[in-house]
Amino acid sequence: MIKVAVLGYGTVGSGIVEVINTNKDLIAKRVGEEIEVAYVLDLRDFPGDPVEKILVHDVDVIMNDPSVSIVAEAMGGVEPAYTFAKRAIESGKSFCTSNKELVAKHGAKLIAMAKEHNVNFLFEASVGGGIPIIRPLIHSISPENVVEVSGILNGTTNYILTKMTKEGLDFDSVLKDAQDKGFAERNPEADIEGYDACRKIAILASLAFGAQVDFEDIHTEGISKITDKDIEYAKAMGMAIKLIGSAKNEEGKISAMVAPMLVGPESSLYAVNDVFNAITVTGNTLSDVMFYGKGAGKLPTASAVVSDIIEEAKNLNRNIRIVWEEEKINLSAFEDINNRFFVRLSGNDKLNEDKVKEVFGDVKVVSCDLIKDEYAFTTKVLSEGVFADKTKEFDNVVNVIRIK
Amino acid sequence: MIKVAVLGYGTVGSGIVEVINTNKDLIAKRVGEEIEVAYVLDLRDFPGDPVEKILVHDVDVIMNDPSVSIVAEAMGGVEPAYTFAKRAIESGKSFCTSNKELVAKHGAKLIAMAKEHNVNFLFEASVGGGIPIIRPLIHSISPENVVEVSGILNGTTNYILTKMTKEGLDFDSVLKDAQDKGFAERNPEADIEGYDACRKIAILASLAFGAQVDFEDIHTEGISKITDKDIEYAKAMGMAIKLIGSAKNEEGKISAMVAPMLVGPESSLYAVNDVFNAITVTGNTLSDVMFYGKGAGKLPTASAVVSDIIEEAKNLNRNIRIVWEEEKINLSAFEDINNRFFVRLSGNDKLNEDKVKEVFGDVKVVSCDLIKDEYAFTTKVLSEGVFADKTKEFDNVVNVIRIK
Repeated sequence: MIKVAVLGYGTVGSGIVEVINTNKDLIAKRVGEEIEVAYVLDLRDFPGDPVEKILVHDVDVIMNDPSVSIVAEAMGGVEPAYTFAKRAIESGKSFCTSNKELVAKHGAKLIAMAKEHNVNFLFEASVGGGIPIIRPLIHSISPENVVEVSGILNGTTNYILTKMTKEGLDFDSVLKDAQDKGFAERNPEADIEGYDACRKIAILASLAFGAQVDFEDIHTEGISKITDKDIEYAKAMGMAIKLIGSAKNEEGKISAMVAPMLVGPESSLYAVNDVFNAITVTGNTLSDVMFYGKGAGKLPTASAVVSDIIEEAKNLNRNIRIVWEEEKINLSAFEDINNRFFVRLSGNDKLNEDKVKEVFGDVKVVSCDLIKDEYAFTTKVLSEGVFADKTKEFDNVVNVIRIK
Repeated sequence: MIKVAVLGYGTVGSGIVEVINTNKDLIAKRVGEEIEVAYVLDLRDFPGDPVEKILVHDVDVIMNDPSVSIVAEAMGGVEPAYTFAKRAIESGKSFCTSNKELVAKHGAKLIAMAKEHNVNFLFEASVGGGIPIIRPLIHSISPENVVEVSGILNGTTNYILTKMTKEGLDFDSVLKDAQDKGFAERNPEADIEGYDACRKIAILASLAFGAQVDFEDIHTEGISKITDKDIEYAKAMGMAIKLIGSAKNEEGKISAMVAPMLVGPESSLYAVNDVFNAITVTGNTLSDVMFYGKGAGKLPTASAVVSDIIEEAKNLNRNIRIVWEEEKINLSAFEDINNRFFVRLSGNDKLNEDKVKEVFGDVKVVSCDLIKDEYAFTTKVLSEGVFADKTKEFDNVVNVIRIK
């Protein structure tokens, strides 16, 4: 019998208890021993819920009980999760979490601490909900020099962009609809401004490249400036707009970015719609593989946490080697990142045409039947810095979207 | 320094040596120790190839060298691979393989032997080439009661079906083209008759359900009877024809099948084209996840073998628990498997209409602008046995395709 404590009895925490109870026998068979949830920590009471019997309000009860081998955290936020993680590991307990803020900020430190104490710190659910991606990166992409890891990492924004595309609606009405349906939070900033995707790509990049990628260093743009007109242009080009988190290794120079991007049908991310997430990994000998599924949801996310519990149960007193060093990777400066750009200028006149030719040289003009009063074009590959300098020459830029 | 022997210096075997040499430093960092290919076994000589220095013709040299900890096999075929696997494991060496015939036939036995000798038997490359699927099934889908595992498991047939669909060509011309391009073998039977996909779904089902699924028990149909007219009908229905291997667990009744199937755009398999493979896994709490990539190719397949070598190097003298018992699962009888069917009858007349109504009840008639002299329809869900009995009433069946 292996005893587990669950920290937080919200959506994911209660899901963890549900998955373990629903598939108890199967899980016991796969671990070779039964898993029991011995404690659930929450400040609230849950009168009438079977969890009452194992509910505690004081984390000390868990930390001081040597019979608890594994602590699973689903509270969210950096604190007190970080303090609890350190205490658990120092007490010789393995720790696992669905908490992307915690992992992005302190993953390297907690991995090192777990190694030192011969226990484990795992975090499969922190990216992609139920989609297996963290463990495949560690154990399956292991022979690869990763060239790129990128993906659609946030279901809320993908739902909004898909609905704008399919129904021709504007951003605000779709956001309101998503909020009404529970697909977007009342305070949607973390999703729509890309902060959630930023933490996730920081975690993926740290694992792919083996050292700390600070999420604060990643240039991050959300989707709140994407309009129904941008979507019309995308359709006219046979492309889709997706919020993409990506990290690349170009001959040792590592760059990362979160931004809405135009994606063509040749990309496996093009057809990833609604609340689905997908992550592609490109290795130097493997070429591309993609992992796809619903990136959130109570039971799928809980299932990923339980997969960590199972691995930790199978590896008691044995540290699973994970290479994510605390030393920080210096990302390429934003100005040095190369991209192609789609640019919309107001006014569809010869003046625009001449000036664009003068500043950008040969460009590909984009026309959209529904929009007549603009001049739109796509550039060649330029660095962000050069592009920014060139666009300073124009006072009539309506919007700019990068092209993946 | 961990010493590895590679059995077979064909496409995959030489790829293994190439991946290890190309990414030597990275791999050493991830393992915590350097990996060296100490021997390559092949009956042939390779004059001028750097492999010459480590080439041996006699497997005894490898088996009798206690400094070799890991043996990677890429020869294909059940024998002598099976004998070599047993000898390696009995000599205390871990064994890994890309060989689906070996794994489908003797996987359970070799897993049990590896456990007994406290070494490992791994086989990531046996399904899906470089796509991580075996390890995710064992380590990530671990909390799940798997409801279904299915997918497009053979790149050659998917290439042929895609090309028939996109270019309107018939089966024979596309097969010839695929052979000319090296995407299909000169003797293409194993691919086009579904034997390759059958072994792969047997492996996936054995892992998903935890016990032996014999490939010989799986009803298997290939794509050689699919004509350009079938493709026209599929297009008229807004669907695609894919060779699907699938295994399902319906309330404890396990069934498996390989057959060409009509797939609609709501399925994540619909847009999987060309030589790409994709495998979807449905769990009772996880819902669907999909794994996607090129299912074959020298370096991607070799990369998957090297990921096994790395895991075995990280787990010397420690058996990684895999639940695939030798006890055989009795699959549902073919007659009892439920499916929907698309049926083409020759002659587009009232006689057909009346008789179909009499035998099948209400059906959905399918019309295709390009085919006028047939009567085509889709049935409700029927067991294979009932469907076979009903179709006996007709002597004018042109073709039947199942609907996923």
